[in-house]
Formats: sequence, C-alpha cells, structure tokens
Amino acid sequence: MEFADSVRKWDVLEVSLKGPSDGNPFTDEWIRGKFWSDNETKEIEGFYDGNGIYRVRFMPSFEGGYHFSVSASFLDAERQGAFSVLGNDPSNHGIVRVFNKFHMAYEDGTRYIPSGTTCYVWEMQSRALQEETLNSLEESPFNKIRFCIFPKHYVYNFHDPVSFPYVGKPVDSSAITVDNFTEYKGLPEGNEWDYKRFNPEHFQHIERCIERLGRMGIEADLIVMHPYDRWGFSMMDREEDDLYWHYVIARFAAYHNVWWSLANEYDFMPAKGLGDWEHYASLLCSLDKYQHLRSIHNGRHFYDYRRPWITHCSIQKTDHYRTAENTDLWREMYQKPVILDEIAYEGNIQHKWGSISAKELVRRYWEAACRGGYAQHGETYLSDDGILWWAHGGKLKGESVERIRFLYRILAEGPEKGLMPYDGIHDEVAAVEDTGSSPKVPSYCLIYFGFFRPAFKDYHLDDETDYQVDIIDTWEMTVTDGGIHRGRMHIVLPGKEYMALRLTRVQL
Amino acid sequence: MEFADSVRKWDVLEVSLKGPSDGNPFTDEWIRGKFWSDNETKEIEGFYDGNGIYRVRFMPSFEGGYHFSVSASFLDAERQGAFSVLGNDPSNHGIVRVFNKFHMAYEDGTRYIPSGTTCYVWEMQSRALQEETLNSLEESPFNKIRFCIFPKHYVYNFHDPVSFPYVGKPVDSSAITVDNFTEYKGLPEGNEWDYKRFNPEHFQHIERCIERLGRMGIEADLIVMHPYDRWGFSMMDREEDDLYWHYVIARFAAYHNVWWSLANEYDFMPAKGLGDWEHYASLLCSLDKYQHLRSIHNGRHFYDYRRPWITHCSIQKTDHYRTAENTDLWREMYQKPVILDEIAYEGNIQHKWGSISAKELVRRYWEAACRGGYAQHGETYLSDDGILWWAHGGKLKGESVERIRFLYRILAEGPEKGLMPYDGIHDEVAAVEDTGSSPKVPSYCLIYFGFFRPAFKDYHLDDETDYQVDIIDTWEMTVTDGGIHRGRMHIVLPGKEYMALRLTRVQL
Repeated sequence: MEFADSVRKWDVLEVSLKGPSDGNPFTDEWIRGKFWSDNETKEIEGFYDGNGIYRVRFMPSFEGGYHFSVSASFLDAERQGAFSVLGNDPSNHGIVRVFNKFHMAYEDGTRYIPSGTTCYVWEMQSRALQEETLNSLEESPFNKIRFCIFPKHYVYNFHDPVSFPYVGKPVDSSAITVDNFTEYKGLPEGNEWDYKRFNPEHFQHIERCIERLGRMGIEADLIVMHPYDRWGFSMMDREEDDLYWHYVIARFAAYHNVWWSLANEYDFMPAKGLGDWEHYASLLCSLDKYQHLRSIHNGRHFYDYRRPWITHCSIQKTDHYRTAENTDLWREMYQKPVILDEIAYEGNIQHKWGSISAKELVRRYWEAACRGGYAQHGETYLSDDGILWWAHGGKLKGESVERIRFLYRILAEGPEKGLMPYDGIHDEVAAVEDTGSSPKVPSYCLIYFGFFRPAFKDYHLDDETDYQVDIIDTWEMTVTDGGIHRGRMHIVLPGKEYMALRLTRVQL
Repeated sequence: MEFADSVRKWDVLEVSLKGPSDGNPFTDEWIRGKFWSDNETKEIEGFYDGNGIYRVRFMPSFEGGYHFSVSASFLDAERQGAFSVLGNDPSNHGIVRVFNKFHMAYEDGTRYIPSGTTCYVWEMQSRALQEETLNSLEESPFNKIRFCIFPKHYVYNFHDPVSFPYVGKPVDSSAITVDNFTEYKGLPEGNEWDYKRFNPEHFQHIERCIERLGRMGIEADLIVMHPYDRWGFSMMDREEDDLYWHYVIARFAAYHNVWWSLANEYDFMPAKGLGDWEHYASLLCSLDKYQHLRSIHNGRHFYDYRRPWITHCSIQKTDHYRTAENTDLWREMYQKPVILDEIAYEGNIQHKWGSISAKELVRRYWEAACRGGYAQHGETYLSDDGILWWAHGGKLKGESVERIRFLYRILAEGPEKGLMPYDGIHDEVAAVEDTGSSPKVPSYCLIYFGFFRPAFKDYHLDDETDYQVDIIDTWEMTVTDGGIHRGRMHIVLPGKEYMALRLTRVQL
C-alpha cells in the first residue's frame, strides 16, 4: 500500500495497492476506502488503474490528522493508515460552489466569476498542440474550460484522438470527409471495442490535464457524454454506462477544480432518454462525495434546470437573435446561476453557431452580465491547419478575449455579491448589487446600451445621492470619468454602439 | 355649381357649390353626390370648405362618360351634370391594393413594393422646411410617408404647428420644455377649441401635400388619430370624433394615393377603447367608397390584424432585440402583408426606438424582406436646429437610405409575385418567389446572413439545376458574380457581416 503521509487541504490524497491483473479487473474486482477526521468522514469508491494497480482518491476539506481504511475484493482484511492535512496551497481555493443563489464562490469564500471557454477535445490532440492550448489559457482571462472525456466525431473533427477510453480498435477514419460525414445512429462497422475494459492511459492523461488546469486556477468542466460519435461510446447499454460513470467519478471527483457536465447537447443523443440522465445524476449525487457543480447542456430543448440535482444552468441559446437577452428570464425560471456556455462563437465557419463577430459576442457578454448571468467564450476561425480553438485549442485569434478580460475586470470591481437585473430605470438594461430586492436608490448601477447609440441620457434616481459616473466603452476598453452627479443627471455620451455607464454612490 | 368637364382616371373630379355660411355649416348642413357611368356608381358625402363653399369629390376608376347628381340640405332640388373621364396620367397607377395575399400592387397592375418613411408632422412645419422635405423625398427611395392630420405634442415637438384643425385658441406652448413635458391625460387649461368647427385651411394644406406626394409617386399614409396631444384632439367625445372622421373621409378619400392609419400607437390613447377603433373602422368601410388600404399602428399591444377591415399589418416592434425576425411568424398569424412601420429608427437620441445604427436598420430591412415582409424607415439624429426627420422632415442625414434603395433594387429585380420565407435550406434565412408553397428546387432564392459571417457555404438543392450565384454585400451595395453552380455548390464568401446570396435558375 502506498500513500503520502501528508497532503495539503483540497489536494488529492491517493492510496494505491497492488492487486490482480488477470481476468477483467474493471468488472471482477472492487476497491473502496473510508477517510475520516474530527471534521468529516467520506466513503469512496476506488478504481483499477492498469498494471495490477488499484487506487482510492480522497480530497480533504479540513486541516489536521486523518485516518483511513481500505477494503477490496482481493484483500482478506482492511488496510489502515493515517496522514495529516496541511494548510491549502494559496493558489487552491477549494471547490467552486453556488453563492448568493445566482453567483459562485470558492470553498474558501473567494469570489469566483465564471469566465469559461470551450475546447471540446483539446486534450486528445498532439502534445505540441496541447502545450500551445495551455499557454494560450495561461495568458487568457478564462478560469473554466469545457471539454470531453470521449473523443469527438464531427465536422472539423474527423481525425482519431491520441488515445481512446477503451481497449480495442476504432473504425478506420482515413476515408471520412465532410462529404461522407454521417451522424451515426448505430455503431459503424469496423469498431472493435470492449466497453468493459478501460484504457487507463486515456484517463491518466485527462487527470494530468485537470491537475495542470488546477494549478492555473482553471476549472475543468468535464463533459461526460456527448453525441458526436462514430465509436459507439454514445450508444453503450446501461451496464456499460454505469461502469463508465463509476470509473469517471472514482478517478476525477477528488480534484478540486472538476465540474460535471452530464452531457453536451443531451437531447441530440438518440440512445438516451430523460430517465437515463436522471439515473446518471443519481449516480453522481451518491458517488461524488464532494458535490461538485453539476449541470447538463442542451441542444434544442432545455433540460429542466429546476431539477434539484442541477446546481446551475449550462445553456445553449435556442434562438439566433434573442440570446443573452433572456438571461433575466432564465434567472426567474430556474433560480440558479445562469451560465451561457454556448451563445454562438466568434468565428467565420459556415454555421450560425460559429460565425458571429467579436463585437456581437462581447455584446452578448454584457447583456448577460447586466442581467445577472454569465456568457462564455468559444472561437471557430477557419485555418489552413484545421485547428479550431472550439474543438482543438491552439492559439486564440479573436478580438473578443481582451474585451472579456475587460468586462471581468469591471465585474471584479463591482459588488462582491454579484449583479442582478435592475428595473428601476425605465427601459434600460441595468444591473445592481444582487441583494435579492431592487433598491430605489442603488449604491451601484451598471447600465448597458448594446447596439443602441444614445448621444445623451437623463436619469433621476433621487435628489440627495451623489453618484460618480463612469462612461465605459466596452469595445475600446476605456473608462472615462463622467463626473459626480446629483438629482437629475444629464450624461453626454459619444453616440457610439457598445457603451455602458457605471454609477457608484459617492461615500462621504 | 362648378366642376370640370373632363378629368383623368384616378384623378379627383370635384363639384363645388355655394351655400350658407352662417350658423355652423359643419353641423347644420350636409351635401352629397352620386356619380355613375356604365361601369360604376358611387354615392359620396361632401363637406363644407369655408367661405360658403361646399364640395363633393369623386375619383373615377374608368374611362368614358359619367353623370352625377348633387343634393344638399340647402338645395331645393338635385343639381345634375356630366363629365368625361380620360385615360390616366402615366404617372398615376391608381390605388395601391393587396396583391398575392402578402404583397401589393397598384390598381393598374404595376407592382408596388412598400418603401415607406415616417415624418409625423412634416406638413405642419415652416414652408421652407416642407419644401426641403419634399426635395429630400424626391431624391429618396421612398414611395410612402406616414404623417398625422392632428399636430403633435411630444419630446422634440413642443412648438405649435403652422395651422390647427379646429377654430379656437391653443394652450400657450412657450413654457413647455423637456423638463416639464407632460403626457396629458386631460385637456390642459388654456385651450379654447370648438371641436365642431373645422379650420378648412388646415385640411386644404394637407390636400395640397397629398397631391404633391401623389405626383411624386408617394403614398400618403394618413395617421388619423394619435396620443401625442396637449389640445384635446385625442379626447373628443363620440359625436365630435364622428364629425372628424366624416370630414376627413369626405375630404381625402378621393385622392388615389391615400392610405388610412386609424392611429399611431392606438393603445397609448387612454380615452379610446377597442370599441372606438372598431367603430371608426366601420365608418371608414362605409364612407370610403374606394376602400383604400386600412391599418392601425400599435404601441405595446398589437391590434388583432386578423380583423377583416384591416388590409395589412402596420407593426411597431415590441421587442428591442428580436424584431424583423418575427416577420414570417406575423405572416403566418395574420395572412396579410406585413409592413414594419416602426422597427426603431436610425439615429442617436436618448430612446432605444430612435438610436440604432444604419447597419442595424438595414439588417432589419433584409431580415424582413427575406421573410416576405417590408421594413420601413425613420431617422432621429439630434441636431442643433431641433429638426428631426422622424417628426419634422428636412434633410436626410443617415447612411441607411442608400442601402434601402439598393435592397429595393434587388427586390424589384426579383420575382414579380414577391417573396416568401423558404425553409428548404437548413437554418438559413432565405426567400423564394411567393407562390404560396415551398418548392424543392426554387427558380430564385435570396439568402441573407445578417450578422453571421460565414467564410463559405455549401448547398445542395438538386443535381440537375444550374444556378447563377450572385454574392451581395448589402452594406457596400455590390453584387459580385459567383459563377454558375450545379449539384453541390461550394460558395466562397468574404467572412463579413451583412452578406447575402442570390441564386437564380439559369434558363436554357
């Protein structure tokens, strides 16, 4: 048995044991552990990691002395041990949780403003490309990335991944082109997979990616299932699916920066129904002892985000025109954080979902923010090498990223409790501190004009309060001092698109 | 009795008589005429035009010999006469009618593509400004203008009009500013009007305007009632209203280029209810013997455009974001021409309805056109002299006008029957000839990409048809030859916003 005698809070303590490697250890054997201290007790499933090695992973949430015991199908008796938990690394703030109903914070109370991007299968590309992606992320304003555990078969995604999750042989991909691309409804001939025998290397690599992201302060929003498939991974039976969910949870749940996305476009998977999703959710709720954030991403039909196991909305827009403008409606409907994981991507590919301008994407970000939610990023620029950020990662080419950084700076300077929509100013898209109720005279107000271009604005909130007015150009990323106003405010604007105003009550 | 012995078809034949001028001729007296030929018979109400003159107006729809008889409260016996109707002036195509359910044509069969603008009270400004407006219209692509019969009290519209429709004295306007501007719910003190005694000069002037517009090929979309009022004209009683409607119809209905807009923002008039509008509509249907186009324009709540007296939708958008994109839905709902008379104006004033860019307005035009409807124009640029096109006319300053001209050129080159939305190409905003049913292989197809910026598009309609592909830059107003394509079409695009494609079947 191997384990470290100390670990930092919110890092992973792993216990590993030697065991049998014959037969099919993934189905024939089991291992589990119990970890306890004065403050918490957790019983956790372990997993087989290949080469006769079995592991149980635990993430402690408290400092101090811990004990554990491990039992397994191949052990005659429990094994026991103890370790101590040191203070957390300053860069590790713990798991992200829902805070103040519509917003998020890390376990240690540090505010978390969701700023995600999507690179569906970045970790299954060449090593050089993966490093490029990580370098891009390092320099980006992103603190979350959505990606898949299974490989992806889709336009711009016909090549095989660097590794597969199962042992076996994939269908020959060499002849697949955009012309004969099929959305498979059944298992294509030529696949030879054992859906009960995992390829541990595939998962080990994802773990290394999760760890590296964690050190960069980036949440790994893991997409556990998806429909873009030519290998049959989307069409396994219930027993195979359950084996997969158990394995995924046993391997990944101890990483502090994991989020669960049950599926991308769940409703585009013909082999799965609502009962399946609710079943996977129940597995997650019982097996993930840390209760990481959980959601599910839609294609055409929204999942019912009121379901109690869902911690936040992970929305793909269903209208090409009115998108982030529905954020306030979705807050009302679901009473949870509204994260617009797919609101169309900056790019120029042939699809509407991947061909909006940076200006339009940034506009959607501001519309979402000033309605108390969070738009998220993606990029789909055609390139000669076939590398598109949205699927493969690589270099960021767009103009939205810097504007997103600017918006998140504005949000970080704003109220700690986050923003809620404010209807106290007629016909304006405005936000105030999310106290749960609309103040008559807000202490902070962010007003966004979008594609409207007023040359001035007149407001009158009350007669006593002094407001510092800042004129924000959301595209040029400038903040201009608009002076201190009281009573009727006449604010001159440049008559340009994409302007915003920030009113801050002057503290005397 | 005076009348011309000949008139051209679709021009006005007027019979005038001397009569009493004492008492109140508007209520004490009446006059009516009957006009007949081999082809038509019409009985028409006349009106008192001041100075002891009474008139009856008739617009003949056929060439040849006509007879008429006139009777009046002050005549002992009918007066009779005859005149001949000559062929129409080539510039006068007759009344605009609904054609092919969703489109329009003049009485003579000439296609009419609605291209309107709005200058609410242009004809009540100074003479010099009126001439400037007419000059602007002459050089514009507009063939319809919406304007009011009553003067307007609203932001940017506080000065008195050059004439009033009634005899009396208006409230003093000199102290009205944007700060003390009130939306009056009752009659402000200081008004002294006789709502039963018209000021004929006010109406005579409007007639001269209608005539001049007619000679320019421009339809006069008359707004008969509206809520922007400090004189009580929006709050008259039923008897006064009826007198007004009779008078307006008697004076204006004989002009071929008149359309009736019962109201602007009918639902913003607190003194009027649905029963009132239906009553005015019934007056119009019985008194206007020519059945000019009739509609009513909404504020927040759509009128039920399915009402049989309504010939076409005159829509103000109710959403700041998704606007012209609803055109196909409105076609489905109302089964009538969809005219988006107010879809926000190009400008920079403080209101959302008056501060969109030319690019956004033109985008809305194309969205409407490619869904089988018609967006319309308005302009609200702040200016030092306080003249805004939307209310006063004057000079056109915006960038949308030339792009509207370009779009209407494209539409005029398109199918004679107009366009209908085409759902034969997945996820595209596309239009084909409005034959009432969607063809598998259209002979003409206009596809619009709006703010999406695809770098290419692949289509496959069938394997046999040759299509001439034209690549249209709707903003730069260019049409580029994209070559002839057959079978799978791979069309390279510039990856810019506001592009369109036109596919035309090549005739062998």
